[in-house]
Amino acid sequence: MKVLWLFAHPDQRSLSGALMTEGLRTLDAHGHQHRVSDLYAMKWNPVLDAADYAHDPAHRLHVGEASQRAYTEGHLAPDIRAEQEKLTWADTLIVQFPLWWYGMPAILKGWFDRVFVKGFAFGLTDPATGRPLRYGDGKLTGKRALVVTTAGARAATLGPRGVNGDLNDLLFPLQHGTLWYTGMSVAPPLLIPAADRTTPTAYATAATRLRERLRTLPTTDPLPFRHQNGGDYDDDLLLHPDLPQPSPPPTGPAAHYTAPPPPVHL
Amino acid sequence: MKVLWLFAHPDQRSLSGALMTEGLRTLDAHGHQHRVSDLYAMKWNPVLDAADYAHDPAHRLHVGEASQRAYTEGHLAPDIRAEQEKLTWADTLIVQFPLWWYGMPAILKGWFDRVFVKGFAFGLTDPATGRPLRYGDGKLTGKRALVVTTAGARAATLGPRGVNGDLNDLLFPLQHGTLWYTGMSVAPPLLIPAADRTTPTAYATAATRLRERLRTLPTTDPLPFRHQNGGDYDDDLLLHPDLPQPSPPPTGPAAHYTAPPPPVHL
Repeated sequence: MKVLWLFAHPDQRSLSGALMTEGLRTLDAHGHQHRVSDLYAMKWNPVLDAADYAHDPAHRLHVGEASQRAYTEGHLAPDIRAEQEKLTWADTLIVQFPLWWYGMPAILKGWFDRVFVKGFAFGLTDPATGRPLRYGDGKLTGKRALVVTTAGARAATLGPRGVNGDLNDLLFPLQHGTLWYTGMSVAPPLLIPAADRTTPTAYATAATRLRERLRTLPTTDPLPFRHQNGGDYDDDLLLHPDLPQPSPPPTGPAAHYTAPPPPVHL
Repeated sequence: MKVLWLFAHPDQRSLSGALMTEGLRTLDAHGHQHRVSDLYAMKWNPVLDAADYAHDPAHRLHVGEASQRAYTEGHLAPDIRAEQEKLTWADTLIVQFPLWWYGMPAILKGWFDRVFVKGFAFGLTDPATGRPLRYGDGKLTGKRALVVTTAGARAATLGPRGVNGDLNDLLFPLQHGTLWYTGMSVAPPLLIPAADRTTPTAYATAATRLRERLRTLPTTDPLPFRHQNGGDYDDDLLLHPDLPQPSPPPTGPAAHYTAPPPPVHL
């Protein structure tokens, strides 16, 4: 594998840092190549703004248009281009972070905000139908991704019946809406729970689990997300009426309401 | 109402900016007070690090401990304290942002990462049981919140059957895991779809919907999330086996898998 390891913790002496070191050593031992984007160490700027696109501030900024044009014309900020070059090189993206407020630290969210511009990470269309290629087919198809996250919560509270919600549901915007959207296949995430009270025994267990996940990553089945153009969605991009089959179990976000929430006003 | 309006778009001349102006005017017209945190205009720093807590970099940073101590001892960075003071003043928080990669722009995620420290936003315990008060009961109980988000996607694709997932599920980490976690009641979100091709007619519709939501906000029923200590969760914080009743419909993230994903290894 050619692995880009994205890392977002402010202190390399942390549990997260120790696990990254362990993980990189494991990749070496199996003959894989790796590059690292340690966002805090790089002082990565996570704030998307007009300067990313050499955009004239006298004119209103349309983010989508300006970013696509800057990508096409080669005017993207150098720090963004450097990250795109790393991801282009890689066939595997590992995204490691402490779970803060049930999501990515801001410095990491801003990596996706700034690096994943139209043209680079998405924007292909099906030549036969003219429809956009997204969710399973896209610019980054052929690459795999793995989320590794440490959390203060106990494991079961991030499971299907836990008060915090199921981890796959919490990661849905990242795993489905970002990684799968751009065409990457997404391995099941690795959760290291109870991270703020890690004993030596718990650390040994976590390190063993990480090594095992990295060892088996090339042959791990990805999360079975539906392809946008795989026949499961209609022309309006809604699930066909007879899907899903079989019905899902009563878990996920809906389980945390005392009654069905009112539908979002569309 | 005393409203804190959190705003996260890089250009005030955008659709988002026009809607904020419309919203603030509406609040004025109804005799409500407001303060604004326009994060881009403030050049808000979203990157949590040791400097926030006057933490000695010679020692390993434990974020939870260091942030709580800095809050208790009055050493939090001044920009964090200023935001905490605004939220303390407010009884209502409006969180407005363009939906980027199905979540908040990094500059906004970092507002929660840095401002919502233990002691300020959570950390109460039930004096009778010693159990933490979270999810519906907490430091920010009594305040209400409303998410207002603009999205490029068409509305139906963010609905219960849409390819992008239901908006309430995408916002679960923010609405449930952050706002409800700290005790705030959360009004149903306002979605302004197809935001990158807004016609004058579409803008008028969006502005009308925003005005109406603000006018009725004081009496709007919040999302019916379960209280952590309301009897629906057991001592391990798992849903009681007979919940939820009635079963939820087959929507939400689970609907986007071709088969049930393997459970997260716990």
